[in-house]
Amino acid sequence: MPDQPICENSYTKNLPQCAANYCALTPLTFLARAAAIYPEKEAIIYEERRISYLQFFQRCCQLANAITAAGIKPGDTVAVMLPNIPEMLEAHYGVPITGAVLNTINTRLDPNTITHILNHGEAKLLITDREFSDVMAEAVKRLDRSIIVIDIDDPLASTGDLIGSQTYEAFIGNQPTDYAWQPPEDEWQAISLNYTSGTTGNPKGVVYHHRGAYEAAMGNALAFNMNADSVYLWTLPMFHCNGWTFTWALSAVCGTHICLRRFDPERVIELIRQHKVTHMCGAPIILNAIVHVEQGEQPPFSPVVEVAVGGAAPPSAVIASMEKMGFHVTHLYGLTETYGPATICAWNRQWDALSPDEQAKKNARQGVVLPMMAGLRVVDSITGEELPADGESIGEILLRGNAVMSGYLKNPQATEEALRDGWFHTGDLGVLHPDGYMEVKDRAKDIIISGGENISSLEVEEALFRHPAILEAAVVAKPSEKWGETPCAFVTLKTTAEPISEQEIIAWCREQLAHFKVPRHILFEPLPKTSTGKVQKTLLREKALQLASE
Amino acid sequence: MPDQPICENSYTKNLPQCAANYCALTPLTFLARAAAIYPEKEAIIYEERRISYLQFFQRCCQLANAITAAGIKPGDTVAVMLPNIPEMLEAHYGVPITGAVLNTINTRLDPNTITHILNHGEAKLLITDREFSDVMAEAVKRLDRSIIVIDIDDPLASTGDLIGSQTYEAFIGNQPTDYAWQPPEDEWQAISLNYTSGTTGNPKGVVYHHRGAYEAAMGNALAFNMNADSVYLWTLPMFHCNGWTFTWALSAVCGTHICLRRFDPERVIELIRQHKVTHMCGAPIILNAIVHVEQGEQPPFSPVVEVAVGGAAPPSAVIASMEKMGFHVTHLYGLTETYGPATICAWNRQWDALSPDEQAKKNARQGVVLPMMAGLRVVDSITGEELPADGESIGEILLRGNAVMSGYLKNPQATEEALRDGWFHTGDLGVLHPDGYMEVKDRAKDIIISGGENISSLEVEEALFRHPAILEAAVVAKPSEKWGETPCAFVTLKTTAEPISEQEIIAWCREQLAHFKVPRHILFEPLPKTSTGKVQKTLLREKALQLASE
Repeated sequence: MPDQPICENSYTKNLPQCAANYCALTPLTFLARAAAIYPEKEAIIYEERRISYLQFFQRCCQLANAITAAGIKPGDTVAVMLPNIPEMLEAHYGVPITGAVLNTINTRLDPNTITHILNHGEAKLLITDREFSDVMAEAVKRLDRSIIVIDIDDPLASTGDLIGSQTYEAFIGNQPTDYAWQPPEDEWQAISLNYTSGTTGNPKGVVYHHRGAYEAAMGNALAFNMNADSVYLWTLPMFHCNGWTFTWALSAVCGTHICLRRFDPERVIELIRQHKVTHMCGAPIILNAIVHVEQGEQPPFSPVVEVAVGGAAPPSAVIASMEKMGFHVTHLYGLTETYGPATICAWNRQWDALSPDEQAKKNARQGVVLPMMAGLRVVDSITGEELPADGESIGEILLRGNAVMSGYLKNPQATEEALRDGWFHTGDLGVLHPDGYMEVKDRAKDIIISGGENISSLEVEEALFRHPAILEAAVVAKPSEKWGETPCAFVTLKTTAEPISEQEIIAWCREQLAHFKVPRHILFEPLPKTSTGKVQKTLLREKALQLASE
Repeated sequence: MPDQPICENSYTKNLPQCAANYCALTPLTFLARAAAIYPEKEAIIYEERRISYLQFFQRCCQLANAITAAGIKPGDTVAVMLPNIPEMLEAHYGVPITGAVLNTINTRLDPNTITHILNHGEAKLLITDREFSDVMAEAVKRLDRSIIVIDIDDPLASTGDLIGSQTYEAFIGNQPTDYAWQPPEDEWQAISLNYTSGTTGNPKGVVYHHRGAYEAAMGNALAFNMNADSVYLWTLPMFHCNGWTFTWALSAVCGTHICLRRFDPERVIELIRQHKVTHMCGAPIILNAIVHVEQGEQPPFSPVVEVAVGGAAPPSAVIASMEKMGFHVTHLYGLTETYGPATICAWNRQWDALSPDEQAKKNARQGVVLPMMAGLRVVDSITGEELPADGESIGEILLRGNAVMSGYLKNPQATEEALRDGWFHTGDLGVLHPDGYMEVKDRAKDIIISGGENISSLEVEEALFRHPAILEAAVVAKPSEKWGETPCAFVTLKTTAEPISEQEIIAWCREQLAHFKVPRHILFEPLPKTSTGKVQKTLLREKALQLASE
């Protein structure tokens, strides 16, 4: 990089950007291209429905015309409350191509939070699925203003009334099937609005820009080895970071989406075999469910299914079981603020020679930045100093790159706090291994400090997961007079498991962990979860606190 | 696309670009990432040499430090005259990371043209290979100023003296192996300078920007299905559009380069088998040479070798022969002005059911835009009106997108002419087929107009190529009093072919072509070629003119 700035020279004169050599980056143009190349190819398969790329494109044009006719203007917000159905994919193109911003709402939220989101995001139009009518009717009723509501009346929705002014099909049905499909004037323009799941307090509205969405989609498609023969199964909710941008990436490679209204592990396995699925994504909880399906004697999937796993680190045991079924598991890490995946545990051929256990250990790390990201650091949370890559020094994970949000909507203070000093501060804790691979150790607030030593709750959970009787486990800090904090574990057992005592589990942990890391208490009870399936450790911490004061 | 501009709203306030969420796009950072992920992995194989990604990166740092120490400043030009050797790859990173601009010179040029390029590009430093000493000594002598000359003293160069002040190894050897590896401040900054081959007149200096180089590299890697297991054989000269940006794309996927000092079809086949090559690129002339290697009874390559073919349309017969050998041929089209490939003949699964001949016909077209390009049109050269996609209406091919040059260096008139009206005017003629696929018909100046009908010289050449005795063919216009112009063919025969008469070839053409397209004259003689292997039709036209006046 230049020490000196570039002076005026032959390269800085008469070589301007113009419409021939500069186009705003946006993932929306991928779809127009796909429809032009493969008009008859299947873009979307949803149970009995087959939607070609031309039909997909035309329906997006109809949606764009319909929302424009409804008075939606560039910069307005359009909210959707939808499962992983074709109309959700249509919204990802038909809404932002008009200059409006797509706000996908987490379908597991309560009316109060949804009202907050609709108010805060200032949504002017809402597209909602019949399945969520009860919650949405309540959320809309609580709004202090009127909003256009359009119903998806999908015959496959098992319940719910129509609560809007018209159905989606009536809304778009009479609209022209063409639209002036052009990139935005400015690639920094907002394309979507995603609220964080927020384990505490009101969720924040993360704003995505077109440039980042394009870069994330291209980077994910490349890292995930996708092409026109790719068949992507929607086990990851599309409302979650716009489906980690795969809603758009599939159009870049002209692959096929397999929609899935609700996650059902047995149905997932059927669909994989039926459509020869090549790719899917999911949180560890999804993988865990798939692993526990009773399949009988079945050959492994062919072709192998590439699975990207995000969220908290899945236990090595789950990864190993997946591989046996015919999945190839790649570990990703990211946050809503980074359009989903920002790092990947890129496979190293030197690991081919390792034992399966050692391989699983390497592969359970969160790895290195994806090609569209510019940097990753692990720093001391207090001093901000870079920590050594020793696999032990725990610090905050910082990220930078073009696939980082433009900021939090109407929250300049939180934006500045998160993006200060040229880095996005994830609030997650991790270590750098000597090979440069990052491993997430914990959320900052989930770390347990016992006798001055840091204990990663994830590490203790890993040990618990390896126990053959344990289905789920979560570990939090319990206040202790002597140690400051000690680990306290909440577990659920597999239905097939023999009864097991607290002492037996503690003894198991002593074999696996340094003694100061071993939980002092094991509680057998279901784990409370957020709408995206994250364990609500805040609630567990309250229980542990109660336990400590008893 | 918004009819109305975006008004001030919540999305336009307090969500600025900053170092955390905006980084200048550049392909240079791919290398730093590859070296961090796979330090020990083979980045470059060159005969007996093996260069790991860490070594590759460190040598690029040394080069960057060396040219900075030599007084090269951001915005200065560094010229290189190099074959496809590791140092050429190093120049693609070590030069532009300093803010300087890399000017790769076509190794087949004459001293006069090279002097023109060094003068026009204002190169301040030149790295040259011993093999080209004679030409370069002459070119440098004719310069009206002094220039730092560094020699590559490769033991595998068969001839040539050292003509510079020091060798490359001495130049970089004592420099530190680290460098502040950062993107440029502005992604529109120039990264490289590529002179057009210019069949007539002085070549023009095409300026590439970092943004376009990043987009082209990512788009090509994705379209070409590359990943960390990719092994790329350098049959395409790296001086040609920076090796169609694969010099950078390989780092994006962390694949392996196989260098090759000089093209030798037999060696190519050996290297493919030895290193399990997965990808290569080349002009049709390269493919033609490979097809004619006497291999004996050999099984097809495994894995299949993906070959991207650019330049003029290769004859269907050549494509068919390649596929039998274990190549999978993909047809690309582009120009120096578009960083190489801008369009690709994307395979359509519906073609799987066609006969091999029909498949070859589909696949010999130049297709559709790559994902990083924004548009392609075929327009009437005079009125500028869009022509129907009927497979017959011939017009000029226009392109737009982020992988279009910023312009011609110090030539604002030519820049404006080429990039006018928001499109890059290629000067090539083509048709759009009803399926939206483009087919190049000819260079504007190569079209033959006979009795008011357009005849594509390429179409006539295709017919000639299908004749089993013909090795090479070129068709130009011969002036005719009656018809205006008539086609005149120049051919060379295969060494193994039986003698054949002009009349026999004309009879063959009559079976293949409409009668007005059949050449009236067939001349048996070697074809004159430019330094990039393009047939010099200008010279053939002069011969045809002479013939007409005899």
